[in-house]
Amino acid sequence: MNDSEPIGQNIDEGEVGFVDFSDFVSNEPFHFESGGVIPELKIRYETYGQLNQAKDNAILICHALTGDHHCAGVYDITERKRGWWNFMVGPGKPIDTNRYFVICSNVLGGCQGSTGPNSINPETGKRYNLDFPKLTLRDMVKAQSLLVDSLEIDKLHAVIGGSMGGMLTLQWAKDFPDRLNRYISLASGSKHTAQTIAFNETGRQAIMRDPKWNKGAYDSEDGPFSGLSVARMMAHITYLSDVGLEAKFGRKLKQSDVSKEHFDAEFEVESYLHYQGRSFVTRFDANSYLYLTKALDRFDFFEGVSPEVTVNKIQAKGLVVGFDSDWLYPPEGNRDVVEKLLKYGKEASYVEISMDYGHDSFLVQSQDLYQLIHNYLNS
Amino acid sequence: MNDSEPIGQNIDEGEVGFVDFSDFVSNEPFHFESGGVIPELKIRYETYGQLNQAKDNAILICHALTGDHHCAGVYDITERKRGWWNFMVGPGKPIDTNRYFVICSNVLGGCQGSTGPNSINPETGKRYNLDFPKLTLRDMVKAQSLLVDSLEIDKLHAVIGGSMGGMLTLQWAKDFPDRLNRYISLASGSKHTAQTIAFNETGRQAIMRDPKWNKGAYDSEDGPFSGLSVARMMAHITYLSDVGLEAKFGRKLKQSDVSKEHFDAEFEVESYLHYQGRSFVTRFDANSYLYLTKALDRFDFFEGVSPEVTVNKIQAKGLVVGFDSDWLYPPEGNRDVVEKLLKYGKEASYVEISMDYGHDSFLVQSQDLYQLIHNYLNS
Repeated sequence: MNDSEPIGQNIDEGEVGFVDFSDFVSNEPFHFESGGVIPELKIRYETYGQLNQAKDNAILICHALTGDHHCAGVYDITERKRGWWNFMVGPGKPIDTNRYFVICSNVLGGCQGSTGPNSINPETGKRYNLDFPKLTLRDMVKAQSLLVDSLEIDKLHAVIGGSMGGMLTLQWAKDFPDRLNRYISLASGSKHTAQTIAFNETGRQAIMRDPKWNKGAYDSEDGPFSGLSVARMMAHITYLSDVGLEAKFGRKLKQSDVSKEHFDAEFEVESYLHYQGRSFVTRFDANSYLYLTKALDRFDFFEGVSPEVTVNKIQAKGLVVGFDSDWLYPPEGNRDVVEKLLKYGKEASYVEISMDYGHDSFLVQSQDLYQLIHNYLNS
Repeated sequence: MNDSEPIGQNIDEGEVGFVDFSDFVSNEPFHFESGGVIPELKIRYETYGQLNQAKDNAILICHALTGDHHCAGVYDITERKRGWWNFMVGPGKPIDTNRYFVICSNVLGGCQGSTGPNSINPETGKRYNLDFPKLTLRDMVKAQSLLVDSLEIDKLHAVIGGSMGGMLTLQWAKDFPDRLNRYISLASGSKHTAQTIAFNETGRQAIMRDPKWNKGAYDSEDGPFSGLSVARMMAHITYLSDVGLEAKFGRKLKQSDVSKEHFDAEFEVESYLHYQGRSFVTRFDANSYLYLTKALDRFDFFEGVSPEVTVNKIQAKGLVVGFDSDWLYPPEGNRDVVEKLLKYGKEASYVEISMDYGHDSFLVQSQDLYQLIHNYLNS
């Protein structure tokens, strides 16, 4: 995720404008794939546009690892930044709120309103922390399906998302084949490579080796912020591309009048990363980061068996989009999903878009992506 | 650096066999490029083969960031691992100890016998720690030149090295143009990209945010081992390739009978990285890691000015070798050095070798590399 959404535009035609979030709350026990159970479930979400009478115009947006439910509009006049996919969602935009009822939910296991490790366990009155059950993408999708139930929607027009969100769209197509017409998976793939697992594990170790992690039982005001910052700094590098970083920073030196301590940031790219680490800890929970990255590492869409078994479950048609500069979830991994779907007779298309922003390309406005999503949703 | 040198071969023909290190000690003050001074200098080194009467058969080997002076042979019969470039150095090998007098020195600023931040400052009786002066590759090469002086060698037959060692060979060619006939730079380049600086800075932050770092004044028995481990885990990923990691580990699960805690290693690649982190802290000093990575980030062979200024200083001929799977010091950065040398009329060649081992390819035995080094040294 990057935070580079342009700011300062007027809220006018073409914008969803002011929005607010809602909470779906279920007091039924929620059962995880691992066998774990929590006594209640809350999923925070936003909606834009109107559900039609036939209730067949809903689109579900799935966010990336550190994203949230706030993908379009602003909460109030002082908010400088729009939602993370504001260029994509709005009246007349590719995910057209004049036409579609758009839902974006925070995931189960997250830390921004949905039930997750930092939620209070009603049975103990304390935060779950590591008592939160082992989490999978199947669990997240199941929780989202309960939210969709609560909105009395039987079948979604589409499920769409990038990165982890892209994997969630695939999981939707597999687990709820008759509840969606189409899915769009951006910058994702069927599973993590060894390299991606290695990066995630290094990030988890940065958190867990921070003495303030305290086996997950930290004070929310005094958590493993150092470790979480380091994890974010590293991850952030993997979200961008070598070419993109070089174009933006190269070897530009930081402007500074103060005399330097040994090992203060000298290059602009260092200050930029420091900022990424610093701001991340103000909005994200360390335990959530552990649970979500582990769920991603465990995700294996074809489950190591013949792809046919997975593919046969799918009914919706799919569009998978890879980005040529994405080395975290490389184009080949995206293309491979479509090749397997086609091999076993499903309707699926692969598109590769050339952009320099690396994995984060799906978060950056481009005419190619804009047109593609618009046309695929209306096809 | 990896530690994958095959073990268990017999010490016989073709091996340098038992070796020992020596220390070059100078009691003259050593002046750093930054203006800093230390009152004395020690450089630890090993030699293999014999210096001839004309003293014109010496080859200097420069090691990588976390390498050392022990590049060939063994110290005693119980040592299971040979020096880090054992396949390259020995009787009849490409760096042929029947023919050449081979020197491998630990660098200034290191932590394995040469003067560095963890050395005792004779003026205070305490470790330098962050009182050690700001370090550059020029300083390291200058210190090596004093070692070469002490061996009464005016001109080296060759200077050769990979990664940081490759950059040191370039620095040699620039700073001591009349003291070497040729240089061979492997898996290096003229400068770090923004991405490489970003990874290094993340590693430094992992160390410096470890509370045990204590602004560099840690107890050597109780240092910032967590932070240094995390830095190493991350760096280790960048030394390998996606393809290489996938071939070696893929998504293989760890074999384990014990029931798992949340976030214990599940995949083999995770255990492998843990091992890399754990073993690294037993042999490397955190402050040295900070100084050396900073020196590397600052290195800019063409110094941001017209390459002609740098190139005009060079007299030796050079061979630069890139590896196609190296994404830390990509082939293009290696090739670019040669293109600039050729443009301004110097004798230089570029070779690109196809191997799956990423940046560490230069440490892995291959017939292509073997033949190339052999022929270039004897050309």
